Amino acid sequence: MTFDLSPLLIEDAVRAALAEDLGRAGDVTTQATIPATASARAVIAAREAGVVAGLPLARAAFLQMDQRVAFEGWMEDGAKVAPGEIVARIEGPARAILSAERVALNYMGRLSGVASLTAAYAARIAHTGAKVCDTRKTTPLLRAFEKYAVRCGGGANHRFGLDDAALIKDNHIAVAGGVVPALRAAKAFVGHLVKVEIEVDTLEQLGEVLAEGADAVLLDNMRPDELRKAVEMVAGRMVCEASGGVTLETIAAIAETGVDLISVGALTHSARALDLGLDIEIS
Amino acid sequence: MTFDLSPLLIEDAVRAALAEDLGRAGDVTTQATIPATASARAVIAAREAGVVAGLPLARAAFLQMDQRVAFEGWMEDGAKVAPGEIVARIEGPARAILSAERVALNYMGRLSGVASLTAAYAARIAHTGAKVCDTRKTTPLLRAFEKYAVRCGGGANHRFGLDDAALIKDNHIAVAGGVVPALRAAKAFVGHLVKVEIEVDTLEQLGEVLAEGADAVLLDNMRPDELRKAVEMVAGRMVCEASGGVTLETIAAIAETGVDLISVGALTHSARALDLGLDIEIS
Amino acid sequence: MTFDLSPLLIEDAVRAALAEDLGRAGDVTTQATIPATASARAVIAAREAGVVAGLPLARAAFLQMDQRVAFEGWMEDGAKVAPGEIVARIEGPARAILSAERVALNYMGRLSGVASLTAAYAARIAHTGAKVCDTRKTTPLLRAFEKYAVRCGGGANHRFGLDDAALIKDNHIAVAGGVVPALRAAKAFVGHLVKVEIEVDTLEQLGEVLAEGADAVLLDNMRPDELRKAVEMVAGRMVCEASGGVTLETIAAIAETGVDLISVGALTHSARALDLGLDIEIS
Amino acid sequence: MTFDLSPLLIEDAVRAALAEDLGRAGDVTTQATIPATASARAVIAAREAGVVAGLPLARAAFLQMDQRVAFEGWMEDGAKVAPGEIVARIEGPARAILSAERVALNYMGRLSGVASLTAAYAARIAHTGAKVCDTRKTTPLLRAFEKYAVRCGGGANHRFGLDDAALIKDNHIAVAGGVVPALRAAKAFVGHLVKVEIEVDTLEQLGEVLAEGADAVLLDNMRPDELRKAVEMVAGRMVCEASGGVTLETIAAIAETGVDLISVGALTHSARALDLGLDIEIS
Amino acid sequence: MTFDLSPLLIEDAVRAALAEDLGRAGDVTTQATIPATASARAVIAAREAGVVAGLPLARAAFLQMDQRVAFEGWMEDGAKVAPGEIVARIEGPARAILSAERVALNYMGRLSGVASLTAAYAARIAHTGAKVCDTRKTTPLLRAFEKYAVRCGGGANHRFGLDDAALIKDNHIAVAGGVVPALRAAKAFVGHLVKVEIEVDTLEQLGEVLAEGADAVLLDNMRPDELRKAVEMVAGRMVCEASGGVTLETIAAIAETGVDLISVGALTHSARALDLGLDIEIS
Amino acid sequence: MTFDLSPLLIEDAVRAALAEDLGRAGDVTTQATIPATASARAVIAAREAGVVAGLPLARAAFLQMDQRVAFEGWMEDGAKVAPGEIVARIEGPARAILSAERVALNYMGRLSGVASLTAAYAARIAHTGAKVCDTRKTTPLLRAFEKYAVRCGGGANHRFGLDDAALIKDNHIAVAGGVVPALRAAKAFVGHLVKVEIEVDTLEQLGEVLAEGADAVLLDNMRPDELRKAVEMVAGRMVCEASGGVTLETIAAIAETGVDLISVGALTHSARALDLGLDIEIS
Repeated sequence: MTFDLSPLLIEDAVRAALAEDLGRAGDVTTQATIPATASARAVIAAREAGVVAGLPLARAAFLQMDQRVAFEGWMEDGAKVAPGEIVARIEGPARAILSAERVALNYMGRLSGVASLTAAYAARIAHTGAKVCDTRKTTPLLRAFEKYAVRCGGGANHRFGLDDAALIKDNHIAVAGGVVPALRAAKAFVGHLVKVEIEVDTLEQLGEVLAEGADAVLLDNMRPDELRKAVEMVAGRMVCEASGGVTLETIAAIAETGVDLISVGALTHSARALDLGLDIEIS
Repeated sequence: MTFDLSPLLIEDAVRAALAEDLGRAGDVTTQATIPATASARAVIAAREAGVVAGLPLARAAFLQMDQRVAFEGWMEDGAKVAPGEIVARIEGPARAILSAERVALNYMGRLSGVASLTAAYAARIAHTGAKVCDTRKTTPLLRAFEKYAVRCGGGANHRFGLDDAALIKDNHIAVAGGVVPALRAAKAFVGHLVKVEIEVDTLEQLGEVLAEGADAVLLDNMRPDELRKAVEMVAGRMVCEASGGVTLETIAAIAETGVDLISVGALTHSARALDLGLDIEIS
Repeated sequence: MTFDLSPLLIEDAVRAALAEDLGRAGDVTTQATIPATASARAVIAAREAGVVAGLPLARAAFLQMDQRVAFEGWMEDGAKVAPGEIVARIEGPARAILSAERVALNYMGRLSGVASLTAAYAARIAHTGAKVCDTRKTTPLLRAFEKYAVRCGGGANHRFGLDDAALIKDNHIAVAGGVVPALRAAKAFVGHLVKVEIEVDTLEQLGEVLAEGADAVLLDNMRPDELRKAVEMVAGRMVCEASGGVTLETIAAIAETGVDLISVGALTHSARALDLGLDIEIS
Repeated sequence: MTFDLSPLLIEDAVRAALAEDLGRAGDVTTQATIPATASARAVIAAREAGVVAGLPLARAAFLQMDQRVAFEGWMEDGAKVAPGEIVARIEGPARAILSAERVALNYMGRLSGVASLTAAYAARIAHTGAKVCDTRKTTPLLRAFEKYAVRCGGGANHRFGLDDAALIKDNHIAVAGGVVPALRAAKAFVGHLVKVEIEVDTLEQLGEVLAEGADAVLLDNMRPDELRKAVEMVAGRMVCEASGGVTLETIAAIAETGVDLISVGALTHSARALDLGLDIEIS
Repeated sequence: MTFDLSPLLIEDAVRAALAEDLGRAGDVTTQATIPATASARAVIAAREAGVVAGLPLARAAFLQMDQRVAFEGWMEDGAKVAPGEIVARIEGPARAILSAERVALNYMGRLSGVASLTAAYAARIAHTGAKVCDTRKTTPLLRAFEKYAVRCGGGANHRFGLDDAALIKDNHIAVAGGVVPALRAAKAFVGHLVKVEIEVDTLEQLGEVLAEGADAVLLDNMRPDELRKAVEMVAGRMVCEASGGVTLETIAAIAETGVDLISVGALTHSARALDLGLDIEIS
Repeated sequence: MTFDLSPLLIEDAVRAALAEDLGRAGDVTTQATIPATASARAVIAAREAGVVAGLPLARAAFLQMDQRVAFEGWMEDGAKVAPGEIVARIEGPARAILSAERVALNYMGRLSGVASLTAAYAARIAHTGAKVCDTRKTTPLLRAFEKYAVRCGGGANHRFGLDDAALIKDNHIAVAGGVVPALRAAKAFVGHLVKVEIEVDTLEQLGEVLAEGADAVLLDNMRPDELRKAVEMVAGRMVCEASGGVTLETIAAIAETGVDLISVGALTHSARALDLGLDIEIS
């Protein structure tokens, strides 16, 4: 996995999550029952199969509670994990480990869930040249992390926000007065390093796009036979992205049409958490 | 719905989510194709049945982009919604509405998803005296909102963090030297307005808890017949919470044992977003 | 002292206080007169008797200015200190020690003042089963620290905020339509781990509370004879808290009535700082 | 009162204090017992005599909870108040008023306490030309507000931080190699709009200061007869500030020596809160 | 000018700048000499010719100090201004206008300076098809504003950060093992909406780039005759950007080679402020 | 150089600038082409002559990206540097060095530019007793750093904000009713450690100022012969500051009039960045 997470984003996100969980008085149960001097050894282990993501956030959670904690990842983000397998080993002050446990697992569970669902989609289309990609339908405040998790699961990233690429949708087209004026307006507006993608519903619209030129086209809610025709029309001149109502059941047929990308909002808006647990021994 | 969301939490969360989406250059597509003077009318409508939650966050998203936007909720958080039903009506500068759309829908989709899943669990046990409740397995940084959504869906809230109640788990018991010393330590430690709950795996442990006293007991991973015995033993002296592997299929049988609460991590860690959309007319 | 302060709260609070004191140009006097290479040894010593609190904040102040500072606590928070006694020893770059001195002492002085006043109250009722406790009348932004200081002084903590327990006061009762509907509304509203306390002015009201049930009752502004009757009526079924006009002179008589807790706003709103000083040798 | 508080400082401080009190779930008691539609009229009234300070913070507290609240100051900061007198009138949504009450009163109580104590000191020296002034021994994070309160009480402000003036103390003198090199170093270092004050313990040192020149001299822990001699020596060439162990009992004798300023740490580190209350009628 | 500035970025940036200028005690001169009730009318006027940018920041500065200020722009960002021309009219409380003046002018002066310098470069190449564009050599924390100012001056924007486009430079090429492997690594790594540009020093490298394909090529430090050859080689297949040592004197010759873009770090790292002043009448 | 930069200011400023540059996805080019395990050695070298400032910010930039980076300054802030000279040496993970490069250079370039321009002005008046000083016309959010850079270049600092000194300008004088009432109002308002400077346009006004007394006088837009007369009139009783239209060409003549200070807004509002570069070898 060569896709770094910014250390600044990790630090801020973990700090905010710890603050949310610790509140004003901190972990009262642990303070009451565990001596400040107690040490612990723990492992984070998978309770089900999936793809792991979020280890740097888990590490940060334990270390922010107490810099004396030693955190050792036994795998890297993006690795497949089987039920019972150990993901990381943690050693240090027992209070810190217990108090940071939930934040660490909440981040890892959510991100591993996204990675695992992405991997499931990716597996269905591994025999094609298409890739599954995410959308902006991410959990608020977690976008950079969830897009990282999509990559961990073998998916590709769509744009990260409203500013790093233009994506012209039906409303923009309507107000701009059609596909061609919308594309021209976008290309005139953005800098030379900003790509322009446009959404089309029909092959007629696609024809207009091809005549005018764009970096990518989003073929929205088209049937496989339409997609196939669209891919033929495009003939490699633009990236072809399919979207709309994609499921684990339908993705293979879509991918087989020859599109380059299939975007799936569910990767981030509807992934369930991967079940990970922390087993601890305190001494 | 009488459960307020703090206006401060809403303002901060929406602001951070808008910043995440707008990045440095803002919504370049909208700037390129929609005149600054264009107005729009839009509705947020449900694309599937569920329970709505998050309207105050959606309102804040549009208003933070432009204070001239008028946002009118057509239902309140906690309302059931049918496919196609309108949830809110929005009118104002077209650019602001388009640029805030995704943040508004991401919050509403996620929170309505939590509310809807909670409502599904609640419906299965409506014939009993039990309530479904959440856990701390929430999305980092969204805890207050997700717990609000659980209430919108008819569920109850477990503690909000590590500090507002003591929840003694197996590790605490082990280090403290048993149920009784752990309970005594917790009761001695916390203030008089902090409740103490303890997790037990066996009826023997439950007996010890009853002898020592606690505010609530978490009956972890017990079969219905054990739960029933536990409820009998407790005889109303403490709140009885069941947890562990609860699903939509198993919750009714658990509720029928007479427990007061059934906690379900999936309400927050594995809800999928409710499908909501924004339909807009720009003039 | 087993009551931890969250390392995150400490870090943020100390950082903000240093920023407040250093302003834009930093400690101009020290920069002008003390070489960057000068080292210093210093002690924090008590100038009067009291109870010490706030050592972790003092440590953080020196370390945030310069990580090379060594800070060695000679006692722990909660310890009694006599005039002249050394509380901590500090060694490191002279500039950092001089520049952080005031922030360290301001935090320690205030928190030790709260701890010392609490200890004074606690001493007056040591022969009874009652404990003195704090209120929400804390210095804005310092609540978690002041409540920690109350514990250092041998007191107990009331709720930390508006959200971690319900405290039904006269206005709530009036609007809700009486003690019983107010209690029912609160119990129906809050989760199972949130306690409900109610304020009563008369024994009649207390009777209603006992009939309906609550976790605690706040007996407001009652004379000792009334308190005694109240304690008898309650007979251990709820926590009894007395409040209103409590002074060092009156607290013993109140405690002797058998109440469990006596809340004293003055612990935090009117404690004077403990006189601590820093003695330094620079080389 | 012509001394403004920055609207930015007020907004941030009140917001942080509300967040501290509301926590994650907000004011659960009020949500449970007071309808969202209830209105209220309330007054803030003095329960004891003093000088009022902090009205802009109180106003902000109510308005941040709900912009529909109307807050009408019946006096201005700096006004003397008698027991029972009304300080401000508030009208609006009952929930907002109840939830913001404590933050508003905590700020006003603390700041009015500082103003009132300052006024008490000022009254003792009104027959002289001296003024009482504050120090940097302020509550962390509240410095600008407490210094404002000192002015409301008729006192003067010492420097606001380590950066806006040089104050050369014994340690600086010792390391710099004496009064004269310390003064020269400071004057060479600071800009032309930064004043330089120096602390002296003896009249000998004062003589050196006079020879070298400074903007002000802090006469530390001198007896009245020494102070008188010092004032004679200075003969109006520098501001003379007395400090050290000043009390309400001793301040008049110090002022009568002819010093210009008497600094009293207790104004801010040991003021007790002024007793203010909120009386409310809900409809 | 259709390029919006995010209202969130404006609000935060202005707030931080006001806090920087007001410090702890606020504008002491104005508080001392201008009554709180005084009103003022003022204009912002140009003292020299140039292009205006930053009006929304100036407006925010006055309004954050006091919401009663009326700010009326007499021109829009991007307009040319002659010496003496009025840029905006301001009316409201005199204190607020005086206290916010410097922040408003500092932002406007800097951004108008960037816009004016950009316009000067743009004017030299208006007869060609080339555009002048910015770099990442911006003032820290002001990037979004300075890039906006470049557009106001008629320039184009290069990437906004390290994340919104790939720009492969010599070090990346060296480590990756050459132009081709570097381009392949980048294209494999980034999402489909992220453009890839590569820097080349020689026409040989350019040939490799053309064979492999890229979205844009940065022709670094080439002489006009080399640039001309490069443009011929590229033949419209990629965006051609020239960079390196461009000055007002040399830019025309570079533009006439047929390149699409000429990037000039000086637009942001070495623009001097446009001289703008505030003329005020207080009543 | 004895003028410290607060470590807190450095940390926050560098963190914000890195966040601005890294955006959501981080340095995608470096992630794509440079292995996570690659190491690098680099130097920061001057490409032109000047005065260096900002090394602590550059160090912080590299270390915040990766704590394993070793940063060794080869000169100190305030040093003169010749073209080609090495300023600092850096060694560590290649990705961190490449990703932090631009932030480090942007800070150093800007601050060294300010220091170098200041040094150029200072050199022109080295034969006089006058010093060049800055103004509040600084880059928003960078004031403390730019004023530090002015000192690095041999200049003096004017006030840091609106709060640390009073500077009475024409509008204040007009509203206050003249020089004398304005001065009296300011002196009555500010604390004893706040200096009062007043701007005068004529020698008549100067006469009034001398009669009333002030700490400093700003002689605005006076010709050298007027300045000379003003200096004679003042005769050492106040600091004399000249301002208005000062250039490298005119400053010597102004300094030779005997004024103490000459303030030049251009030092900060119109300095161009010093050309510094990073040369790197990756292994």
